[in-house]
Order: sequence, then C-alpha cells, then structure tokens
Amino acid sequence: MRVLLVGAGGVGTAITRIAARRSFFDHIVVADYDLSRAEAAVAALGEGSTRFSATRVDASDQAAVTALLTQERCDVLLNATDPRFVMPLFEAALEAGAHYIDMAMSLSYPHPERPYETCGVKLGDAQFERAEAWEQAGRLALVGVGVEPGLSDVFARYAAEELFDEIEEIGVRDGANLTVDGYDFAPSFSIWTTIEECLNPPVIWEKDRGWFTTPPFSEPEVFDFPEGIGPVECVNVEHEEVLLIPRWVDAERVTFKYGLGDEFIETLKTLHKLGLDRTEKVTVGGTQVSPRDVVAACLPDPATLGDRMHGKTCAGTWVKGTKDGQPREVYLYHVVDNQWSMREYGSQAVVWQTAINPVIALELLADGTWSGAGILGAEAFDPRPFLNLLTEYGSPWGMRDQ
Amino acid sequence: MRVLLVGAGGVGTAITRIAARRSFFDHIVVADYDLSRAEAAVAALGEGSTRFSATRVDASDQAAVTALLTQERCDVLLNATDPRFVMPLFEAALEAGAHYIDMAMSLSYPHPERPYETCGVKLGDAQFERAEAWEQAGRLALVGVGVEPGLSDVFARYAAEELFDEIEEIGVRDGANLTVDGYDFAPSFSIWTTIEECLNPPVIWEKDRGWFTTPPFSEPEVFDFPEGIGPVECVNVEHEEVLLIPRWVDAERVTFKYGLGDEFIETLKTLHKLGLDRTEKVTVGGTQVSPRDVVAACLPDPATLGDRMHGKTCAGTWVKGTKDGQPREVYLYHVVDNQWSMREYGSQAVVWQTAINPVIALELLADGTWSGAGILGAEAFDPRPFLNLLTEYGSPWGMRDQ
Repeated sequence: MRVLLVGAGGVGTAITRIAARRSFFDHIVVADYDLSRAEAAVAALGEGSTRFSATRVDASDQAAVTALLTQERCDVLLNATDPRFVMPLFEAALEAGAHYIDMAMSLSYPHPERPYETCGVKLGDAQFERAEAWEQAGRLALVGVGVEPGLSDVFARYAAEELFDEIEEIGVRDGANLTVDGYDFAPSFSIWTTIEECLNPPVIWEKDRGWFTTPPFSEPEVFDFPEGIGPVECVNVEHEEVLLIPRWVDAERVTFKYGLGDEFIETLKTLHKLGLDRTEKVTVGGTQVSPRDVVAACLPDPATLGDRMHGKTCAGTWVKGTKDGQPREVYLYHVVDNQWSMREYGSQAVVWQTAINPVIALELLADGTWSGAGILGAEAFDPRPFLNLLTEYGSPWGMRDQ
Repeated sequence: MRVLLVGAGGVGTAITRIAARRSFFDHIVVADYDLSRAEAAVAALGEGSTRFSATRVDASDQAAVTALLTQERCDVLLNATDPRFVMPLFEAALEAGAHYIDMAMSLSYPHPERPYETCGVKLGDAQFERAEAWEQAGRLALVGVGVEPGLSDVFARYAAEELFDEIEEIGVRDGANLTVDGYDFAPSFSIWTTIEECLNPPVIWEKDRGWFTTPPFSEPEVFDFPEGIGPVECVNVEHEEVLLIPRWVDAERVTFKYGLGDEFIETLKTLHKLGLDRTEKVTVGGTQVSPRDVVAACLPDPATLGDRMHGKTCAGTWVKGTKDGQPREVYLYHVVDNQWSMREYGSQAVVWQTAINPVIALELLADGTWSGAGILGAEAFDPRPFLNLLTEYGSPWGMRDQ
C-alpha cells in the first residue's frame, strides 16, 4: 500500500510517528503546503524514515493533488488538514481512483431562519451527495476516522453488536483535565476552531424527529470521566458522530457533548456576548481586524504547549439501553496521558489520540479486514479488529459499567 | 463670575443645560478640541444661550489654555475632560490666576513591585504636590467635585458633622439598574475607562495603616440600593474619595465599592484572563492593534444610548459609627431616573448626575458661601448649603437609616 498523507501539522506529524512502527504499508508521501513542515516530519523519524518521502502540495488545488496521487501511484489519500480542504481532497482522490480517509467532514451552514431548531447544510452533506459516484467507481471514502469522530463511532457499533439488544441513547462524551504550566488560561486546542465548533448550533438525532438543532451550550450535564479525570461540565456541540452513527446503528437518540468545563463555557459565552467571536472585521483606529483573530493572537499557540502540558484526555461513547431484558449503561473510552504521549512519540496527547485511529484504519484496509465502496463511517465496519489493533498498538481502550 | 468650561462631551453638555437655568454667573465659555461639539452644546440651549459662547482649545496645550483664560477674563476653569488632561488644565488655571474645578483627579500608577499591597503614585498626588503654590497664589483648586467623587464627599462631611460622634467606616457605594433596549450587553459608560478603573489596584484607607491597595474586585458584598434598584454585587475599585475623605473627615476606615454586578465583574475578569484588557498592541494578520481598543470597537458607543436606556442610577455614602453612645448606620444617597433626566435635560442619567455637582460648586463659589485657597476636596467645606442647593435644583437627596 502506498499512501498520500496531506498535512504535516500536529496530527499529520503524529501519524508518521505511529505508522513508522508498523509494517503494513510500503510508502507514505508526506505532503504539505509548507515543504519544510513535511521534511521536518520525515526527518524526525530518523532510521524509520526510509519508507517516507516529503513533498509540497496545495490542498485546495484539486488538480495538483490528483496529479500527485497518480504520479506517486498512491492507493489512498489520508487527509490530515483542516476541514476547509475536505472537498478538494475528497474529489481529487475519486478522480485519481484512490481511496480516501479523513478525520472531519465537509462543513455545515446554519439554517438561515431557524438556526437553533432546524438543520441547514449538515456536516458531511456535501460528501454524502457524492455517494453514488464513489460506489460506481468502487472506491471507499472512509469519513470521520479520527478519535472523535472515529473511535467514538467504533465504540457505538461495538456496543450495538456485543453489549445491547436495544439502545435508548448513544452519547459521545469528551473530557480532559489538561493544564498548562505558566498560564492561567491556555486552551490545548485552537481557540479559533473551538469558537467555531461551540457556537455553531449543536445537532441532535432522535428516531422520531430525525436531525434537529438547539441553541449553543444546550443540555448541560456533569459527566464523570474515568482514570482520575473526574467530573467535567459537558454541553451539546455540533459533531460528526451525530450525523454518522444513526446511518448504521439503531438507537432512539444520538448526541455529542463536549466537556468544556464551566469556566471555558462561560468564557465562550462572554466572547459571544461582547461580539468578540465575530470573524467579520471591525474598524479600530483606522485599521480593519477580525475580533476572533485578535482573541487568538492574545493567547499562546497550543501547538507549542506540549512540553508544559499535564494531565489526560478522554474520548468515549456512553450508551444506555437494555440487554437480556435488563437495563444497562456503559461508557466505552480511550484515555491518553500527555506525559506518556510526549515521552513515547513527542506528540501532545490530544493530537496523538486523533492520529492513531486513521493509522489503524489504513492497516485494516491494507490487509483487507475492512473493505467497501461509497461513503462510509467507521461504524459501518466490524469494530472488533479495530479495537484489537488499538490494544496491540499499546494504547488500550476501557469500559465502565455504570 | 466668568467661567471657562473645557470639554463639551456628555458631562460638559449637561453642565451647560443645568447652568443655563441659574443666574449666579455672567458668562460661560464652552471650549472643546472639536469646535463643532462646543457650538452644538451652546446652540442646544436655544433662548438660554445668550450667556454662553463656544471656542476651540486643545486641553493638552497649557499655554493655549492660559491664554484663553486671560483673554476671556475667566475667574474659574471648570474641567470636564477626561483625566489625562487634569495636569495641563490645573497648571494653566494657576498660571492665569483663575480658580479650578475638576471631577476626577490626576492619574495613579501602581507600585512596581507590590501593586496589590502598596500604593504607587496615588490619584491626585501630582495635584497635592502643588498645594503650596496654590495657597501662596490665594487661588482654589476644588478637586473631585462630580457626583463620585464630589457629592459622595459632601455626604461624608455631612455625616461627620450632623449624624455621628465617632465613625467606624465610610464606604462610598455606587449602583444602578440601567438597561439598554436591543442589546444583551451595553455598558452605560466607556468600557475602555471602566477596564482601566476596575483593573487598577483598589485603594483602601485605614487609620492605623494609611493608604494601601488590594487585588482587583476585592471584598465583594451585595449592597441593597434604594428607590427600587435593589441588591447589586459591589467590589472595591480605585476612586478619589478614598484619597480625599481621610484628609478632612475623621474615620477609622474609608472604602469605595462599585456596584458592577456579578455579570459585569465576570466579564471584566474574563477579558483580563484572555489578555484582552491590554493596551499594548498585538500583531494580527500583519497589522498592530490594542486588544482593549478592539473590545471597545465591538460594543455600542454609550454616549448614543440615552434614548434606549431605562432605569435609575444611585450614588451615595454609607456610614457606620456611633451617635450619643448608640450604634448607627446610614446611607446618604442621590438617585437619578434616566427617563426623567432625558425628558428634563436631554441628558443620560449617569452623565447628568455627574454634571449637576460642579454647577452647584460654582454657585457656592460665586456667592462666597464656599471660599478658600490651595487644593481642597468638597469635604473641606460646609456641606449644608451644597445639599440645600441640590434640592433647590429639583433633584433632592435621600437618607436611609439601616
């Protein structure tokens, strides 16, 4: 198998480090808009770098990506860029006859009149519209296969197959206790993206209603995360799992709640109240700036904080239903300790936890364990081999009966 | 009496409207950096404008202000600009042999090593250093004679003279229930100035310790304001009264607490946590902007909000001590309803409440009821005539025994 990895940022770099320890592939071409980032990712592999090469590509240039896939005879394109580049990369893969994997889906747009009740354009809609073309070409677009979405979807399918007869609710729950030395307030992920994600109308799925939206930060709950993380305030956030899981897993309700914590939620609400979340520019002393860019410029760059970060991050899927006529409730989860991921891979925990999952997916495609054509989420496949590989990679998952 | 009023902003304009109804003065020259603002203030007086004239002056140009005072044969300079211009106007008045009145004193600078324990340069220090020159010239600088400081200091002196034998604490307490139609969040005063005032180390005076500082937002308390305003969360804020009252009134302790309300306090804390209160510029997409200027640019201009504002603002002085051997506690206060001040004077309540006090002070100087030389606060004078004029002007004060 030959792979074109597009994007050598935090997640792309961690992908190379995880893949370098596995034998399932022949070659990975690491491509980035900034050639020096791609080269740095390959160089950092040291002796393990022989199966990797670096090149420059503009992810927004579909023709250039198609040409690169053809020239490098790649079987699959792994997209590790930000969601703005999903569509050109997805189309380039189809055009070049390659399979495609991403970790976030095409962007949503709120309903123009009733944004907090009704979906507008949903996450992934632009990709699902192209399903027939992919099926006819016999190529697979494996969408949303990071940790969330991705591993969370695998957990949902696993619960449906092995743990429950009937499922009342599947709720993805994400929480952490990460802190950064020397800062009162230093998000471990891009504040720009977090504002985008958290202030978009959250989406919920119910069997009777289908997909619908709510106001931001709806349905707050305190969720108790495992392995010492403890209780964190979680709220509904727009996320791909809610769009993916109901397509392949039978449940009454599907939600995604992000453990932002009450301090972070209040901070985002305050930014919104003051209009500082806006991306439209305002005039300040004769110059024009986007308030959200100013907020980002006032905070440290999260990519540089791994060395000063402490704590664990947890991704998981809480499922409530019945088994053998008895009520049951479980939380299937995966925890990464930042100290461990920094020591073992030189990668910050949040980034590393995202990166391991597409590598496992590649391995399952390479050995034929997972195969298919069209637009499929991780929950469309047998979950057991995925979970077994997670443990084999040295990063086991857990389950809590509650 | 001929007066030079410098500053035709909200407060300066309200001063002309209040003064126009009184006969104690011969002429007021209204001067502003922007001549059209001065002209608009005079024109708005209609038939009452005959004793007023408009001119342009740069308040930072001491020589120009001195020349204007001499040319216009003014007896007194009334400073209605922002505190950056206190020192040039104060010096210009002395140089021209005029008396001087302001509503805020020269600026403070925090202690370089222990900002939240020890005073650095205090509010008014630069003015008090010049006391001897004013005394020798036989001219009066009547400092801090707005509503707070100003009327609050008059209340303190009144309490000491007529209501108490011994005073344990004098605490100025300021609160409002103003709301603005059509805005979730619209401060009724400059957010730039409020950040400055509230994030400076608050100052406290105690007889045993003298002046000292604390961290911002210290000693929160809920104070119940009269006339339907009700309970508001108040915190210590740096303010002139704490520097003025102990010089002329005997008390064990003097504080100033601002009823910002918990929402506003949390908003200011969040801005500080994110570094958005900073005035030093940050680089955003190649341009340089001050984050605090961006925050101000995102909010509506409070000067334009009078028509959409509802509610009342209260300024007052709470005093605790003993009288005739019995414990006593009173709150002396002055409330302005925005609907009333808009209807009667076309001025927003906060601005109008500030403006009435220097007009009363001018009237007391004009008829010789108040006189003196040097740097004096309102509490250096007999409070009764001031309070009587407040009632005579149609805006009575109140007292609550508690």
